[in-house]
Amino acid sequence: MTRPVVVDIHTHVYPPTYMAMLRSRKTVPYIHDPSDNGTPRLIILSSDDDPAIPIDQRGRPVDSSYSDISVKLDFMRKHGIDCSVISLANPWLDFVLPSEASDWAKLINDDLNSTCAQVNKMADPENNLLLVEKASLFAFGALPLSAPAPDVVQEIFRIRGLSHLRGVIMGTSGLGSGLDDPNLDPIWAALEATQLLLFLHPHYGLPDEAFGGPETTARYGHVLPLALGFPLETTIAVTRMLLSGVFDRFPRMRVLLAHSGGTIPFLAGRIESCIMHERKFEENGGDTPGPKRSIWEVLQTNIYLDAVVYGQAGLKAAIESGSTDRLLFGTDHPFFPPLNDHDGQWMSVTTNFNAIYASLKDAPASAEAIVGDNAVRILNLEEK
Amino acid sequence: MTRPVVVDIHTHVYPPTYMAMLRSRKTVPYIHDPSDNGTPRLIILSSDDDPAIPIDQRGRPVDSSYSDISVKLDFMRKHGIDCSVISLANPWLDFVLPSEASDWAKLINDDLNSTCAQVNKMADPENNLLLVEKASLFAFGALPLSAPAPDVVQEIFRIRGLSHLRGVIMGTSGLGSGLDDPNLDPIWAALEATQLLLFLHPHYGLPDEAFGGPETTARYGHVLPLALGFPLETTIAVTRMLLSGVFDRFPRMRVLLAHSGGTIPFLAGRIESCIMHERKFEENGGDTPGPKRSIWEVLQTNIYLDAVVYGQAGLKAAIESGSTDRLLFGTDHPFFPPLNDHDGQWMSVTTNFNAIYASLKDAPASAEAIVGDNAVRILNLEEK
Repeated sequence: MTRPVVVDIHTHVYPPTYMAMLRSRKTVPYIHDPSDNGTPRLIILSSDDDPAIPIDQRGRPVDSSYSDISVKLDFMRKHGIDCSVISLANPWLDFVLPSEASDWAKLINDDLNSTCAQVNKMADPENNLLLVEKASLFAFGALPLSAPAPDVVQEIFRIRGLSHLRGVIMGTSGLGSGLDDPNLDPIWAALEATQLLLFLHPHYGLPDEAFGGPETTARYGHVLPLALGFPLETTIAVTRMLLSGVFDRFPRMRVLLAHSGGTIPFLAGRIESCIMHERKFEENGGDTPGPKRSIWEVLQTNIYLDAVVYGQAGLKAAIESGSTDRLLFGTDHPFFPPLNDHDGQWMSVTTNFNAIYASLKDAPASAEAIVGDNAVRILNLEEK
Repeated sequence: MTRPVVVDIHTHVYPPTYMAMLRSRKTVPYIHDPSDNGTPRLIILSSDDDPAIPIDQRGRPVDSSYSDISVKLDFMRKHGIDCSVISLANPWLDFVLPSEASDWAKLINDDLNSTCAQVNKMADPENNLLLVEKASLFAFGALPLSAPAPDVVQEIFRIRGLSHLRGVIMGTSGLGSGLDDPNLDPIWAALEATQLLLFLHPHYGLPDEAFGGPETTARYGHVLPLALGFPLETTIAVTRMLLSGVFDRFPRMRVLLAHSGGTIPFLAGRIESCIMHERKFEENGGDTPGPKRSIWEVLQTNIYLDAVVYGQAGLKAAIESGSTDRLLFGTDHPFFPPLNDHDGQWMSVTTNFNAIYASLKDAPASAEAIVGDNAVRILNLEEK
């Protein structure tokens, strides 16, 4: 009897080098070590950096699960995850000085690659150090986006040569002006040429004003920025890519959207309807080029979605907008740890597992594809 | 052989009195009559009021379909719609001087009621003026939200006494501070007591900054504000209601969400997960009361969704988040008219019809419920 391979394609790390850099900073993002030697605090969102909150309580606790790969491996064992495709957590290198960005990217990508190699060597059955069945790590690399575009392109091609890297992770800021910026074209071209998967992930959220101002935002803790700001940011970013013709110019680019696309699967129909009714677009008699390919076509040829949507309602929209072949299981580890039972399974993980199996109870092969087989195929994970 | 009753619960009007008021204004919202006697222009969003655009081209054309009820009836005939529940289009009375708001609300609600009565009399088969089978109109009333809360409450109770009004329409601004404002409690209490359906509808969208600034927003015409700004505004508003405990304090309140809830069905799982992980909430050891009832419970007891989502992906999430008994067909008429073939069926309408029947091809009774029977039951439309 075999069980399905489980691959986690949404799982973050802060390698020790990156942690050290965050500790050296005093502005967001930064790490603060509390005076009582308690768990270090990560101040990652500008809304976290509230001077009214004592600095020892600002942000969120950032324990060893962020930087110690053995904690990740424990988490994998506990949840039956065979393989994780790790990625630097937000905000990546977006904030790094342009002159230093390429060096940081090289350092971190090499670090990720060697971590994967080291773990995979341990996991090799011939080494008698099998951690979990087929336990293995791969990674998405980080890009030096504050550096000039040619440097970013160079790092993309360098990443392709790193044995355990299978794609890159990127936020929605691009070169600072969003993902509809034509200056990103050389970067899209490099991603298309290398066929590295672009893992698009939110960080910036929405302006506080969208939530009723900073006081309203703060009233509900992290709920508004994380539950809404993140997915709505992704939604806006992808729509701007579509509207500006990125997917027309780079029809073979492959993009994995975090959190099941933000809300793209749900809103795809409305977006397409608004495009079809927009008088500004040439196709409708206006003077601005509109997108040439429909959002449905893009969802079925360029876009992959993780299955990090915490329920059947969202998952069914994700399946319907693309197919079960384009959805990939993820956990968002080490975010959303259990608040109380630290020894049990993480609710955030089991909720996503259960949604997949419940939504596809009549199609177990499709459930298995989402849980792992799709990632193996799409990211070529059998070749180490 | 019978065919299913078709009820449109999302269909807007600007009664002649309201049009006259908009014509008398020079700031958003206002109507401008072009110098060449062309179609009047409605400048409804602040982003429309761009001084760089000649005033004769600013905003959108607002033809007789907005104010002439016979055009609505023609539209209904063309699409086989038996009954429409008309509502004042945004921005309703949000901008009216507090001292004038109650008078405007009374005028407009009486106007809506008498329009319905007049049309229904004509539609009465005994009068031999049957327009379409069972043709009939009902309405959602407008509220004087800029007036003091007791005046709003008074108008809610007055609306209950108007024979053809079945609910009220409201934007997300509330009394000016959003829908988590505790000062709205008397209004929620009145809505709960009367069991009038609250039709919650967006207008304000998101700040331009969320889309990358005003230039980026304008680059794609109305797509970003309408395709994303509208549903994301609704999503934020409903989440703030949930987080602030509105549905705990008023567990019998009935709310119909425009555009299938914005994106609430898709994000419900993520919202619930973030609530369960929020350390600020008392339930998790913090000092702030969190919502007591889960978003799933609220979706299945308080919330109804229209089926204005333009595709099966969104519709399936809407169905999964609540049930087919809580979804109601709508058109958003007179918005999204055909750009070219003015004699044909409206694509915006057929897309929504087709999504319902395609999503429920194995459950035709559920499709019929969404198309009309649910509205008849939920809004008590058999009693005139």
